[in-house]
Amino acid sequence: MSQPQPLTTQENQHNTYLTGYTPSSTIHHEWRTAQNSAQHLLPTLTQMATLNPQLTLLDVGAGSGTITASLASYMPQGKVIAVDLSEEILQKAKRHADDVGAGNVEIRQGSVYELPFEDGTFDIVHASQVLAHLDEPRKAVGEMIRVAKKPGGVVALRESDLRAWSVYPEIPGLLAMNKMLCAVYETNRAHVKAGTQLVSWALAEGLKRQQITASAGTWCYSTPEERQIWAETMADRCVNGSVPKKAIEMGIAKREELKEMAEAWGKWMRAEDGWFGCLQGEVLIRF
Amino acid sequence: MSQPQPLTTQENQHNTYLTGYTPSSTIHHEWRTAQNSAQHLLPTLTQMATLNPQLTLLDVGAGSGTITASLASYMPQGKVIAVDLSEEILQKAKRHADDVGAGNVEIRQGSVYELPFEDGTFDIVHASQVLAHLDEPRKAVGEMIRVAKKPGGVVALRESDLRAWSVYPEIPGLLAMNKMLCAVYETNRAHVKAGTQLVSWALAEGLKRQQITASAGTWCYSTPEERQIWAETMADRCVNGSVPKKAIEMGIAKREELKEMAEAWGKWMRAEDGWFGCLQGEVLIRF
Repeated sequence: MSQPQPLTTQENQHNTYLTGYTPSSTIHHEWRTAQNSAQHLLPTLTQMATLNPQLTLLDVGAGSGTITASLASYMPQGKVIAVDLSEEILQKAKRHADDVGAGNVEIRQGSVYELPFEDGTFDIVHASQVLAHLDEPRKAVGEMIRVAKKPGGVVALRESDLRAWSVYPEIPGLLAMNKMLCAVYETNRAHVKAGTQLVSWALAEGLKRQQITASAGTWCYSTPEERQIWAETMADRCVNGSVPKKAIEMGIAKREELKEMAEAWGKWMRAEDGWFGCLQGEVLIRF
Repeated sequence: MSQPQPLTTQENQHNTYLTGYTPSSTIHHEWRTAQNSAQHLLPTLTQMATLNPQLTLLDVGAGSGTITASLASYMPQGKVIAVDLSEEILQKAKRHADDVGAGNVEIRQGSVYELPFEDGTFDIVHASQVLAHLDEPRKAVGEMIRVAKKPGGVVALRESDLRAWSVYPEIPGLLAMNKMLCAVYETNRAHVKAGTQLVSWALAEGLKRQQITASAGTWCYSTPEERQIWAETMADRCVNGSVPKKAIEMGIAKREELKEMAEAWGKWMRAEDGWFGCLQGEVLIRF
């Protein structure tokens, strides 16, 4: 497990990851797989890998690389490249790929604004929960489009609508945390509703509507195991990393209130009837 | 197409369908299929139908019966019974089943609180967007559990979190409509967050947590055709049926404001980058 590495304010302004890579956030990142986070791409990926086993896939903002390795397992003879701004998290992604036997994953440090590849390099270009954290998400979409093969390539995007949390029981601290999170995102030029904007960004980058397949996906946490992983991640996010620091700096929440939010997640975790659902917008762009 | 039949206030108090069966609401009902509205049940249904082709399925609150007929197509040798409180909508369900060649669908008028069947009659008991409209959703869940076979039977439920709308562009009238709709539901003892409560209702009816598989699904509207069907349905719901009547009676919205909400849907429909997602809670209960 890598050490917590809270981001500085300056780093955030350069479009790194606002949440930071605290232990709990990486634990939840590890829960993510192609099955629970890339259903909008899997049927297409499987079909493309059947027709062309030597498929290439670029995973942009790959983070700890669990979705990357999971995608790679669907194209064992293909090549997957994980790009991220953070060299440290990429090392983690590489270790994870090795651990699960995904020998076809390579890592490459780079910015989503200037992907270090020629035009039309990849059969599939994928990003999950990345655009929301960028100053210029539309520019990043354009860059991803640039490196996708034409014709035949695919760009797959998935982003949250952070406001669309459905939770039971509705413990006040949980709703307060959602408000706090949205406020911190909004004042840091992140995009709480990125999931709803994917079609608009793709169109603004010159695509035709017929090239875009839009859908919506979810994450849902309800079993005791799921509640534990989600509650611990969320509780950690209330008190560690740069989000709570910024919330305090900006006068959005007091330290005591942040602690109460974290405690609310503990309460939710212990509720046998606890249920959490959140919505993500998805697009699949075909060339 | 049946004639619009707005419900009276008295009828609503007896747990009939608040929205009413206006032409646009039934057009949207017709869009609903097992593929877009019962993914939480389909793999189990398919497996059960393979093991036992003479499967029986009860669809509770079947309405215009499109999900019913769609489910029936996965169990062609089985028997499907559609129950609803409204005899008129059941006739429509029967016509729809006949139109699509679902010869294995029967209709039966009845209340979800007193299903006209013996204990343990059905292999599968299904309800979609029904519990939210009931005074006593938990009691209905108990009744559905009663008529499911034990062991081996399954109860499948799916309900919205009406507050969890994700929409782009965020035209003010659309958000105003969502608020209006939630307020009307809440003051009419309907359940805006039913989707989040399914696990809690099932547990309260004596089930063990291990018997319940919880998930979340979505509806998403984005292509020109999808935007048209959803916008027309929603615009109609702003001005026809009992919801706007109640909103006016209760002082929640003025007629002029309701018209503006309907117009906002027209604007959204014409936006090429229009996108709408909403979240539904789902459970599959196994005996």
